[in-house]
Amino acid sequence: MSVGLGPLPALAPVPGVRLGVACAGIKKPDHPDLTLIELAPGTRIAAVFTRNRFCAAPVHVAREHLSRTLPRYLLVNTGNANAGTGARGLEDARRCCRAVAELTGVDVAAVLPFSTGVIGEPLPVDRMLAGLPACLEDLREDGWAAAAEAILTTDTLPKACSRTVTLDKGSVRITGMAKGSGMIRPDMATMLAFITTDAVVHDVDLDAFLRQAVQVSFNRITVDGDTSTNDACVLAATAASNVPLAGDGDRERFLEALTDLCRELAQAIVRDGEGVTRFITVAVDGGATEAESEAVAYTIAHSPLVKTAAFAGDPNWGRILAAIGRAGIDDLAVESVRIWLDDYLIAEHGGRATGYREEEAARRMAGEEVTIGVDLGRGTARTTVWTTDLSYEYVRINAEYRS
Amino acid sequence: MSVGLGPLPALAPVPGVRLGVACAGIKKPDHPDLTLIELAPGTRIAAVFTRNRFCAAPVHVAREHLSRTLPRYLLVNTGNANAGTGARGLEDARRCCRAVAELTGVDVAAVLPFSTGVIGEPLPVDRMLAGLPACLEDLREDGWAAAAEAILTTDTLPKACSRTVTLDKGSVRITGMAKGSGMIRPDMATMLAFITTDAVVHDVDLDAFLRQAVQVSFNRITVDGDTSTNDACVLAATAASNVPLAGDGDRERFLEALTDLCRELAQAIVRDGEGVTRFITVAVDGGATEAESEAVAYTIAHSPLVKTAAFAGDPNWGRILAAIGRAGIDDLAVESVRIWLDDYLIAEHGGRATGYREEEAARRMAGEEVTIGVDLGRGTARTTVWTTDLSYEYVRINAEYRS
Repeated sequence: MSVGLGPLPALAPVPGVRLGVACAGIKKPDHPDLTLIELAPGTRIAAVFTRNRFCAAPVHVAREHLSRTLPRYLLVNTGNANAGTGARGLEDARRCCRAVAELTGVDVAAVLPFSTGVIGEPLPVDRMLAGLPACLEDLREDGWAAAAEAILTTDTLPKACSRTVTLDKGSVRITGMAKGSGMIRPDMATMLAFITTDAVVHDVDLDAFLRQAVQVSFNRITVDGDTSTNDACVLAATAASNVPLAGDGDRERFLEALTDLCRELAQAIVRDGEGVTRFITVAVDGGATEAESEAVAYTIAHSPLVKTAAFAGDPNWGRILAAIGRAGIDDLAVESVRIWLDDYLIAEHGGRATGYREEEAARRMAGEEVTIGVDLGRGTARTTVWTTDLSYEYVRINAEYRS
Repeated sequence: MSVGLGPLPALAPVPGVRLGVACAGIKKPDHPDLTLIELAPGTRIAAVFTRNRFCAAPVHVAREHLSRTLPRYLLVNTGNANAGTGARGLEDARRCCRAVAELTGVDVAAVLPFSTGVIGEPLPVDRMLAGLPACLEDLREDGWAAAAEAILTTDTLPKACSRTVTLDKGSVRITGMAKGSGMIRPDMATMLAFITTDAVVHDVDLDAFLRQAVQVSFNRITVDGDTSTNDACVLAATAASNVPLAGDGDRERFLEALTDLCRELAQAIVRDGEGVTRFITVAVDGGATEAESEAVAYTIAHSPLVKTAAFAGDPNWGRILAAIGRAGIDDLAVESVRIWLDDYLIAEHGGRATGYREEEAARRMAGEEVTIGVDLGRGTARTTVWTTDLSYEYVRINAEYRS
């Protein structure tokens, strides 16, 4: 099940980037589960990783390799997270990198590993190594759609999109893909995203752009930031277009397009969240600080009572109000708070809105997409968060995942 | 459904306390839903209330009345929380208090109102007033069992127990009752608890005892402390036994018995949590500070992934490990962390324990009660939290509550 997600749009190849996939038998037989992304020599890269203290072996190894040299290959497997695997997990991740390095003639540190899937099982390294030649064989510039399929775990649909950005000296492309998973507490899901561009971008800019874009996209579908054991988001710039970011105007346009692409991918993860039947936007305005707007938005977005009400299509404003009340704003003036479903005012002055009609509110909550809007009446800070409802299907998926 | 809860034990009447119930038609017809607790003149009282900023009208009124005089009557209705009801809600709560005051000849401030049930609907005051004479008529010292039934909402079983404490100058009784509700995020459930004793206890002691007992009982089944809109816990001492707390030994014995009683009531709330199929104790030891032990315990206890795994009887230690890793301890040495299911070690050194056998772990997780034990290996601070699994039934109850 998913909400508002269709087939993949046309994906623009990014000069300097080739992708190949293979069926390595990690996840299940005859299913693509191994992906190799090749980056042209000289490609610059920025990356953000999970903040979970139990970060997975591939995260450790990727960080280490990134500190030594520029990457040439990203190796992604699904079906196994190589997390909670101790010293052996680290060695397994390194073995995979060494194998790619040997087959391609690059330094081992130029290979970054990424894994997603079950936690705590040893990585089937032999099967991965056996799949590598097929991956290399398959490398092609138009491999995005196949790769977007091959990185999925419990996702039901692939997620990828492209942008073209017109800059002072010419136009550049940005193409990216992502995978998600459980979404009720997305900080626990493994989110992987790979975004590439053929623009010429300096390291400092690249890093700043990625962090800014992630902050209002992928980090707006999580509680504590990137906190699963494997989360990673990579932005690579091949410079193959020879088009630089020539000034502040270019930088702004590029960041805007990148942010827009990240937001589409992040929302796609929510739209395909486990058991989702409703796509919920929580838009909190009127905070005295961004921190308090965020706290309120996340408290609503993670309230199982709000989420089960959303599943039922029940405009239970009392639960939203109670969530706001416990979000940690000590001096909240409850009589100044207003709550909307889409454009329909449902609560004000500490209670139900004047003229509130249950059937009007229910009509909004019954939509496939609904916005819970909140004005805290304290200032101008706003935060938007995207989330899912909480359904029987969510429980089923997560109760049966390992059995 | 409930786990490990039987019929009510024998409840010792507390001299100076009488309880009466009535069917006022608030919740459903011919079902006791109105309870009056009468306290003898001179009864001392301590109370803790929700910290939710949207606290309900009765909470406002109870706090105000408590600041003016000693209470003589506690009026409790179920079926309607009188929360999110604005100015009218306050007036409704006051009207009910006035009515009790007029019928009994006490000051209006000597009446405290408590409500639990649906948020945002006007309190059916007329029905409550019509039920009051029957409540008064019904007042009796042995009314505990009936009252414990009458205060329930979605609870399936009543929760009450008694303790006798032998002090230097004689023995005293403590009898209490509680109600719970949704338990996955218990900070949203309405928890009401009424505890009385015939001991002679000074105000300062009474308040300190209640806070200390609540901290390790009712506050160990919630995230942010008492944060629903209506939560309240009251401790009343009638002094009818004429037995004082004579010294530190007495104080210690009394506090121990009170804490034990509160813990039994708190656990009973979890055992009867919405949709519960498994009673989970999360015991975190080895923290550098109590705050970090608490953070880890609550992160595990509120992880939907851990809770759905528990529902499935799946010993998914990877999810427990991931929850620990995102609990906010920045300098956590993951290789020092150990995890048990009951007495069975399942994870250490950042991965699966040596000799781990899935069927042994599964046997523990399949029990009606299971303890998730964690040693953080950083110090001696420990915290224990009680919670439920996350089942289809939880979703059903909370998706259908208002329909």
